[in-house]
Amino acid sequence: MVNTPLLISQMVERAEKFFPNKQVVSRTSAGIQRFTYKEFGERTRKLASALAKLGVEKGERIGTLGWNHHRHLEAYFAIPGIGAVLHTINIRLSPEHIIYIINHAEDKVLLIDDDFLPLIEKVKDQLTSVEAFIVMSDKEELPETSLSPVYSYEELIKDGDAKFEFVTDLDENDPAGMCYTSATTGNPKGVLYSHRAIVLHSLVLGLADTGAISERDTIMPVVPMFHVNAWGLPFASVWFGSNIVLPGPFFTPKILVELLESEKVTLSAGVPTIWLGVAKELEEGNYDLSSVRGLLCGGSAAPKGLIKTFEKTFNIPFMHAYGMTETTPLALAAKLKSEHDELPEEERYDLKAKQGILVPGIEMKVIGQNGEVAWDGKEMGELCLRGPWIASEYHNDERTKEAFKDGWLHTGDVVTVDEHGFVKIVDRTKDLIKSGGEWISSVDLENALMAHEAVFEAAVIAVPHEKWQERPVACVVLKDAYKDKVTKEELIDFLKPQFAKWWLPDELIFMDEIPKTSVGKFLKRALREQVKGMLSGK
Amino acid sequence: MVNTPLLISQMVERAEKFFPNKQVVSRTSAGIQRFTYKEFGERTRKLASALAKLGVEKGERIGTLGWNHHRHLEAYFAIPGIGAVLHTINIRLSPEHIIYIINHAEDKVLLIDDDFLPLIEKVKDQLTSVEAFIVMSDKEELPETSLSPVYSYEELIKDGDAKFEFVTDLDENDPAGMCYTSATTGNPKGVLYSHRAIVLHSLVLGLADTGAISERDTIMPVVPMFHVNAWGLPFASVWFGSNIVLPGPFFTPKILVELLESEKVTLSAGVPTIWLGVAKELEEGNYDLSSVRGLLCGGSAAPKGLIKTFEKTFNIPFMHAYGMTETTPLALAAKLKSEHDELPEEERYDLKAKQGILVPGIEMKVIGQNGEVAWDGKEMGELCLRGPWIASEYHNDERTKEAFKDGWLHTGDVVTVDEHGFVKIVDRTKDLIKSGGEWISSVDLENALMAHEAVFEAAVIAVPHEKWQERPVACVVLKDAYKDKVTKEELIDFLKPQFAKWWLPDELIFMDEIPKTSVGKFLKRALREQVKGMLSGK
Repeated sequence: MVNTPLLISQMVERAEKFFPNKQVVSRTSAGIQRFTYKEFGERTRKLASALAKLGVEKGERIGTLGWNHHRHLEAYFAIPGIGAVLHTINIRLSPEHIIYIINHAEDKVLLIDDDFLPLIEKVKDQLTSVEAFIVMSDKEELPETSLSPVYSYEELIKDGDAKFEFVTDLDENDPAGMCYTSATTGNPKGVLYSHRAIVLHSLVLGLADTGAISERDTIMPVVPMFHVNAWGLPFASVWFGSNIVLPGPFFTPKILVELLESEKVTLSAGVPTIWLGVAKELEEGNYDLSSVRGLLCGGSAAPKGLIKTFEKTFNIPFMHAYGMTETTPLALAAKLKSEHDELPEEERYDLKAKQGILVPGIEMKVIGQNGEVAWDGKEMGELCLRGPWIASEYHNDERTKEAFKDGWLHTGDVVTVDEHGFVKIVDRTKDLIKSGGEWISSVDLENALMAHEAVFEAAVIAVPHEKWQERPVACVVLKDAYKDKVTKEELIDFLKPQFAKWWLPDELIFMDEIPKTSVGKFLKRALREQVKGMLSGK
Repeated sequence: MVNTPLLISQMVERAEKFFPNKQVVSRTSAGIQRFTYKEFGERTRKLASALAKLGVEKGERIGTLGWNHHRHLEAYFAIPGIGAVLHTINIRLSPEHIIYIINHAEDKVLLIDDDFLPLIEKVKDQLTSVEAFIVMSDKEELPETSLSPVYSYEELIKDGDAKFEFVTDLDENDPAGMCYTSATTGNPKGVLYSHRAIVLHSLVLGLADTGAISERDTIMPVVPMFHVNAWGLPFASVWFGSNIVLPGPFFTPKILVELLESEKVTLSAGVPTIWLGVAKELEEGNYDLSSVRGLLCGGSAAPKGLIKTFEKTFNIPFMHAYGMTETTPLALAAKLKSEHDELPEEERYDLKAKQGILVPGIEMKVIGQNGEVAWDGKEMGELCLRGPWIASEYHNDERTKEAFKDGWLHTGDVVTVDEHGFVKIVDRTKDLIKSGGEWISSVDLENALMAHEAVFEAAVIAVPHEKWQERPVACVVLKDAYKDKVTKEELIDFLKPQFAKWWLPDELIFMDEIPKTSVGKFLKRALREQVKGMLSGK
C-alpha cells in the first residue's frame, strides 16, 4: 500500500474538484454571504499563500479569535495547508487566560474578528510571541486599531495566489490544530490535534451511525469554531461536499431557527442550552423545519425532556454525543440500535439521554474500585479512552501526568455502562462521594432533589467524615413560593424510596444561592469550603 | 494524539462488546446456520489460538480456498488477529495458477472447503511451503483425504481458547491480507493489504455517500470472499455491527433472491452477471424485496438497462462502483449528487452507468496524450490512483514497474471524466486503438455495433497501419436469424451518424464466434493474431 499521509489539504482538493458548486453560507455583520466551494478553495489558497509570505513556517502556531463564519472556515484549511497549526482561541476565557494561552502556544500570528479587537488591544503588550495581526473584517480597509503590524484579511486575500499548492511534505502525525481546555484550577491546558487525528475523526463523523454526513446535507455548526474545531464538522462538511451554514456572531434562537428554515439545514450541532432556546422559539413561532434530519447535542448532558420535545413535539431526530477537548471530540454517540425498537418509549428515551456507545476506531475502559466495571448500568467507574484521535498529553504541561496514564486518557468522568453498552455520566471523579469504600453519585442525588416541586436547584457535595471517610451533604435553594414551607426532613423523605439508605445525605442545608462558575456550572470547590465553615460553626 | 495502530482486531472487539446479539447467517451444505457476534467472536478467538498453536507466526501467510460462509469469515479475522496474512485464493484459477500463487505467497497453512479437497489433493506434491491443511467442513470428523497433516476446522475450534487475546504488537502497515490478480500474460500478481489499508477502506465503505453501512443493515456479499476480500464488506459489516448473510456454495439466482427476502437483506454486492440473473428471477417470481435499500455493483461495467430495471421496475436503488485488486478495492462510486436531481431521467441513468466520483481519502489523475485530461467527458486518459489503500507494488514481482510509476498505480483503464467529476471507463489501455496520434475506444465501437438488431456480439481491435500507426477492425457475430442477410456496409453505415469519420472501422469481418477467456471476456490478443492472419491472407 502507498504510504501517503492523511492530510487536511486533501479535503479542500476534493471539495474544489467534485463539489465546486456547493456552498458556504456565512452570516456576518454585513449580512448573509455566499461562496461556492470553488470560491472557497481559491480564497483558502490565497490566504495560505499570504500566510506563507508573512513568514509563517511549518509547525508554527496561528491563533484565531473568531465567530463561526467563512473567513474562520478558510483559516481552518489554509493554516494546516501550509503545515502550520490552527490554534482556535476560546474568546469566552478571561483576558488573563487568553494572554496565557497565546503566549503558551507561542502564536506567531493572530487572526481576529473586529469584535475582539478591543480585547486584544488591551492585552497586546503582554503578548510575547505574536509578530502580526490580521483583522477578519467584512471591510477591506482596516478599522482604527493600536495593533501593529496589522493587516486586513480581505486585502491579503486580494493579493494572494488562488493556485497556491498546499504543503504536502508533512507527516500525518504533525500537528494541524490546537485547542485549550479550562482546568479546575490554574491555567487552561493545551491539546494538539494531528492531521491524522482530524482526518480519521472526520471519517468517523461521516459514518451512517454517527453523523452520516453526505453531499446532500446542509450542515450548520452552532457549536463555536473555538470549541474543539466545532466538533470537527467544518472538516467533514467540506470533505464530503455538504453545504455549510455558519451562523456568525450574536445569534439568537430566532436567528438560528430562521437559518435552519431558510437554508433548509439538514444537520445542526450545539450544546443543550442552544437547543433549549431553539425549542422555546419553535413553541412560540411558526416554522417549517422539515428539512432537518438531525440535531447533534453534546458539551454537557441533554435533559431527557428536551430530547423528547424535539422528537415528539417537533418530529426532529435528536442525537446525544459525548466528547471533550482531549478527544477531538467525538467518542460516544447515542444512536439507538435496532434491538431497541421494541423497547417501551420511556426506556428508549432513557437510552437516548445517555451518552451512548463507543464510536469505531477508539478503545474505552471504565475503571471502578475493583478494576473494570460490570456492564450492568449500576457499577460506577472512571471513563478512560485511547485511540488515534484521543490526546496523549497536554502541550508542554506538567499536568499531563494527572490525566494520561499508561497511554490512556482518564477523562475524570464517572460513568456506568448498561447491558446495551450505553455509557452514562453520573459524576465527575472530583465530585464523587466516597463513603465507606462505596461510591455515591452527587449528580444522581441532585437530579432527584431537583425533581421535587419545591426545589429550584440543588448541589450535593462530599464532606469529610471520621468513620466513613466522606458523606454527602445537600445544598438546596427552594423556589420563592416554597421558602419556609418545606422542611429538610420532607426532602430527605422524598429521596428515601429512590436510594439505598447509605446514599441519603447526612445533612441538608437551605441556601439563597449556590456559587457558580462563569458558565453557570456549580462551583463545588467553593461550596465545599462554604459548607465546611457552616458545619464546623454549627 | 495517541499513536495506537489501526488494526483489524479492533473490529471484532467492537462487535463482541456492542453488538453481541447481531447475527452471522451462513448458508452451507448443511443448510442455514446462525451465529451471534458473541459466538462469532469466541469461534474467531478459538481459531486464532489454534493457528498460533500450530506454529503460525507473525507475517506468515495462510491461504484459504473457500466459499462465502461463517468459517471463512472467522478466518478473515483470526488470521490477521495473530499478525498473520489472510491469503484468499481464487478457486476459479487454473490448477497451475493455484499452485503458483500458493508457492509464491509461501502459504504455510491452507484452509480448504471440502469442495476443493480433490483439487488440492491433486496438486499437493507441487506445493513447496504448506505445512498443514485445515478442512472447513460442517462435520467434525475429517472426510477421507490424502492430505497430511490435516485437521478438522471444527475440532480445532472445539479445543481453542475462547478468550484468546489478539496480537496487538503490530504496526498498522504490517500486511493483513493478500490477493492475486490475473495478468494478461503469465502468472497472477500478488497484492498485499495492510491493516491500515483495510481499516481506512472500511471507514470509507461506511460513509453516507458510499455504502452507508449501519448497525441496522443486513449485508449480503455475493461477491466471493476470494475476490478482493468480498470488496471489504465482511470487515465493515462486523465493525459497524450489521448482520451479515453469507450465501455459501453453488447458489442460483433463485437462492439469492430467497435469501434477500427471508433474511430481510438491506444491502448486497456483486458483479453485473449476478444482478442480471437476479433481475430475471424477479421478473418471473413473486418476491417482496422491500427491505433492500441498495445493490452495489462492480467488477465490470453494469449496462444502463440493468440499472434502470432495478430502479424503475423493482424500485431497488442500484449503485455502480469501481475498483480492482490493487485498490482494496473501492476507488470510485456512482452516487448521484444533489445537483443531478434536476436532470432528465436518461441523463441521470447515463451518470449512474458511469463508474462515479473518487471516494474520500485517495487521489486520482487521468493522464492522456497531453498530460492530465480536461473534465469534458470526451478526452481520454489512463486512470491513475494513489492513496493509503492503493497498492504500491506487486509482491516479489518484476512486473511492479509496469503498473506502478512515481508512487501512482496506473490502472490500465482508459477513462473520460465529465464536468460532474464522473469517471467513465472507455477501454483498457492495451485495447485502445491509437490512430494518427488520436485515441479510438474499442469499447464504444463495440457497444454501438451490439446495439444493432442483427448483431449477437462484436469485438473491435487495432491492426497495424503504415500511415496511421493503428486502425480499427471490427469482428462481428450475427444472430442466427440474420446470417447472410446483413452486409458489412450496412453495419458501417449504422455507425456513421454516431462517430467521427476517422473512428469508423477500416474493415468488418463476420465470424462464427469470438475467442473468449474462461470468464467470458473477449480474448483480444488471440483475436488480433487471428485477424492478422486473415487480413494478410486476403
